[in-house]
Amino acid sequence: MFLRNAWYVAAWDHEVGRALFPRTICGQNLVLFRTEDGAVAAFEDRCCHRNAPLSVGRLIGSEVECGYHGLAFDRAGACVRVPSQSQVPPGARVRCYPVVERHRWIWVWTGDAAAADPSLIPDMYWHTDPAWRLAAGGCLHAKCQYQALVDIQLDQTHSKYVHPTSFANEGAIRAPALARRDGRRLHGGRVMANSDPQPFMRRAADYKPALADVWIKWTYEPPCAVMFDTGIAEPGAGALQDRTKGNGITIFNTHFSTPETERSTHYFWASARNYKLDDPALDALMGKIHDIFSEDVAMVEAQQRGIEAFPNEPIIDVGSDAPTIQARKLVARLIEEEGNARRVA
Amino acid sequence: MFLRNAWYVAAWDHEVGRALFPRTICGQNLVLFRTEDGAVAAFEDRCCHRNAPLSVGRLIGSEVECGYHGLAFDRAGACVRVPSQSQVPPGARVRCYPVVERHRWIWVWTGDAAAADPSLIPDMYWHTDPAWRLAAGGCLHAKCQYQALVDIQLDQTHSKYVHPTSFANEGAIRAPALARRDGRRLHGGRVMANSDPQPFMRRAADYKPALADVWIKWTYEPPCAVMFDTGIAEPGAGALQDRTKGNGITIFNTHFSTPETERSTHYFWASARNYKLDDPALDALMGKIHDIFSEDVAMVEAQQRGIEAFPNEPIIDVGSDAPTIQARKLVARLIEEEGNARRVA
Amino acid sequence: MFLRNAWYVAAWDHEVGRALFPRTICGQNLVLFRTEDGAVAAFEDRCCHRNAPLSVGRLIGSEVECGYHGLAFDRAGACVRVPSQSQVPPGARVRCYPVVERHRWIWVWTGDAAAADPSLIPDMYWHTDPAWRLAAGGCLHAKCQYQALVDIQLDQTHSKYVHPTSFANEGAIRAPALARRDGRRLHGGRVMANSDPQPFMRRAADYKPALADVWIKWTYEPPCAVMFDTGIAEPGAGALQDRTKGNGITIFNTHFSTPETERSTHYFWASARNYKLDDPALDALMGKIHDIFSEDVAMVEAQQRGIEAFPNEPIIDVGSDAPTIQARKLVARLIEEEGNARRVA
Repeated sequence: MFLRNAWYVAAWDHEVGRALFPRTICGQNLVLFRTEDGAVAAFEDRCCHRNAPLSVGRLIGSEVECGYHGLAFDRAGACVRVPSQSQVPPGARVRCYPVVERHRWIWVWTGDAAAADPSLIPDMYWHTDPAWRLAAGGCLHAKCQYQALVDIQLDQTHSKYVHPTSFANEGAIRAPALARRDGRRLHGGRVMANSDPQPFMRRAADYKPALADVWIKWTYEPPCAVMFDTGIAEPGAGALQDRTKGNGITIFNTHFSTPETERSTHYFWASARNYKLDDPALDALMGKIHDIFSEDVAMVEAQQRGIEAFPNEPIIDVGSDAPTIQARKLVARLIEEEGNARRVA
Repeated sequence: MFLRNAWYVAAWDHEVGRALFPRTICGQNLVLFRTEDGAVAAFEDRCCHRNAPLSVGRLIGSEVECGYHGLAFDRAGACVRVPSQSQVPPGARVRCYPVVERHRWIWVWTGDAAAADPSLIPDMYWHTDPAWRLAAGGCLHAKCQYQALVDIQLDQTHSKYVHPTSFANEGAIRAPALARRDGRRLHGGRVMANSDPQPFMRRAADYKPALADVWIKWTYEPPCAVMFDTGIAEPGAGALQDRTKGNGITIFNTHFSTPETERSTHYFWASARNYKLDDPALDALMGKIHDIFSEDVAMVEAQQRGIEAFPNEPIIDVGSDAPTIQARKLVARLIEEEGNARRVA
Repeated sequence: MFLRNAWYVAAWDHEVGRALFPRTICGQNLVLFRTEDGAVAAFEDRCCHRNAPLSVGRLIGSEVECGYHGLAFDRAGACVRVPSQSQVPPGARVRCYPVVERHRWIWVWTGDAAAADPSLIPDMYWHTDPAWRLAAGGCLHAKCQYQALVDIQLDQTHSKYVHPTSFANEGAIRAPALARRDGRRLHGGRVMANSDPQPFMRRAADYKPALADVWIKWTYEPPCAVMFDTGIAEPGAGALQDRTKGNGITIFNTHFSTPETERSTHYFWASARNYKLDDPALDALMGKIHDIFSEDVAMVEAQQRGIEAFPNEPIIDVGSDAPTIQARKLVARLIEEEGNARRVA
């Protein structure tokens, strides 16, 4: 069960060009492509004639031609040509999804097109703002339900165990988890004065002292965007209130866990910094985040196998689960409201 | 759901020898072999004792010996020996299918043995007639429902898109599809005066002019035989009425799409010509038809994935679908009649 | 459907050490390990918090630490630490299975812990008795229902067909199958005076004469232990009554077919002799039993495919099936009694 009226990241901008690009999101097979003017379009990946995937056809100008019998569809999904006859049958069209290209990602709306408001796309200005360097990013495929990835992102008590050599942070285990609702958003994280900086952050900041002020703050936008503001600075200089103090560094990490199916996820991630914008060695270090997030994937994939092996066992909650429980309730409520709205309509 | 009372091609003649040869057709596991006198027999591939597949046993003379406990079955499937006792239990036998070897293929009847009339086997005399050269043939495995292969064979409007460098034929797209019922058979195709000859036919005929008289005529025999009479000749010489006119060539292509399971098919094909019977270069060229028919398989396998991804979407028909719709109705009616007959009996 | 109140072999002793060792038995995911004092423990392989498999965590001292959030469990499965808080939530524990290490194997009880009586473990003293040499052993993975392996073990009429070059024994095919119930146990086999010794036994005994007294006696303990006492000796010397007569040899083969799932099995086997205890060449010969038992696995895997392909076909029994039918009835009755006891309780 997925939230329908939502923007999902379907691809990085560079993944979609003048080739037909198939991708499944929320259990729906899509084909994405750029029209001649560079705009991105997304169709359901099936010809309305005999169900052949359009992605095995051809892109000709801004039209998609089915590879089976040559039916052609314009950028809005309307069939404009049936080669074997002069008329196009009424109703011959394929579903066309609302698409927005923003923040280096291609966003697709899976619900009612009339409700597709681009202002609902989470703000990730650091992906393109010249004051920031988008140093690393990618897409990991995870054989798990998407919410398991959101869970691991919202709860830093896992870092010591899942990322022992990189994001491990003793302080985060005992620091209280903050969580505050703000409309559809949830804000949370941990703010730790005089704590142990994560090994990775030490390296990124070239930071030597034993302790630092450490912050790991996130914003969750349902159903699957998690944006981190994380940094370290000299302790006691006020960096926890103002990041410019204390000679610290800030890194913003973005996570978007687009459901592929009920049990698999396209996990998009990006990492940006606002310092040393032109430093290839630092870019290379931040590229290693791929390996760190792959540790998350390995853990939630193992967890998924555990869930499937023990489908009926009760689970025990602990205190630090509060944000993830709140996030799941938020999504459940949105899905329920969506269902109610459809029943009324 | 398959038509039961029908002959299905289970194998090429050379595939079946003095080794036990397992093959699944219509969801039924069979084992085929030749008895000492060279005749082909087909059993269900299971010992009646403990379900071990007979195909992992041994062929001894004309008896099949189960590889587990040595039970032996004669060519009619009757158990003739239980090594551990002197008596054979009553009812110990395995199902034996009617088999006919004809036209280089091994035909198996999956329905009531009493109704297995060899005269119902489609005529494919060109496979063995000395006036013809059976230049190429094979068996492709396709992960699709068998009727998807019949569909692609009966509708030539796909050729330009699926076979752009070989069978592409602009004329076939606009030429009206002919279809005529003749008892259980359906005849159809396209006859095109002054049309563009297919690149493959040009090569096979060593034909230079821009235009030719082109014919692509087929006979469909339910549930899954499609036989083509196709050729090109100099335009206006009367070849469309009489193939000997116009210095043309004729190739007969045979297709038999035997269901393996509901979603997979053994696709047997053969290609024969009635000219230059002894020309190895031409044989080699016709051998390339393997690649062309593999393009069909790739398309219908993609289509199968599309059908499974969108199980409930309506499809739109176009005019050139008429023969395939007629063919599917024919099969549906035969299956329904078969069911009615069983309920009465 | 498995017998719950039973000891199952989960592993060889050497497989379980100071690493977390996952293994599925009877459809239940387990993790096994040795505590600091060398004792073996078996937990269900899931953290009670969020279902992460404990096997991807760490063993620290005698505690298992979950690899996700660091929850720690003592050797009895009780949660003793939640790193992110000072209190352990009530009910936080994982299921701990009764375990016994005996006869070189690790035995796990899958039923009610209160009923886990170690005296119910079958006696296999020859695995460790200094008068015996445990020359070979292993664990084969078989894609079949476990009872299919028990069946092939209890009925020697298969040997000529499945093991033509090693255990083949013409005499066993016609010799009457003995079977005698003794409490929960079943004793059976074949005793053959003046019979053809198996090629393998000839080699193991360096035995030249054409005929021998041959015995193949087994004890079956439900649900899946089969223990063989097998030997050959000079004919007529009385070895069939007293193995010390007739210059013969005895080999004890042990089989334990632990269900992994309804359709897969961990097939543990061992082979011991009571002569030439220090003979590496004989050890090497007995190591080849791996290949012989692999022939059994290949046959029952083929049989499993046959059973699944023909789920509704009746099967025919023969006389030599009596012991396997009796064994299956024994298990069915035990499972039924277990169900009745649970309903009453």
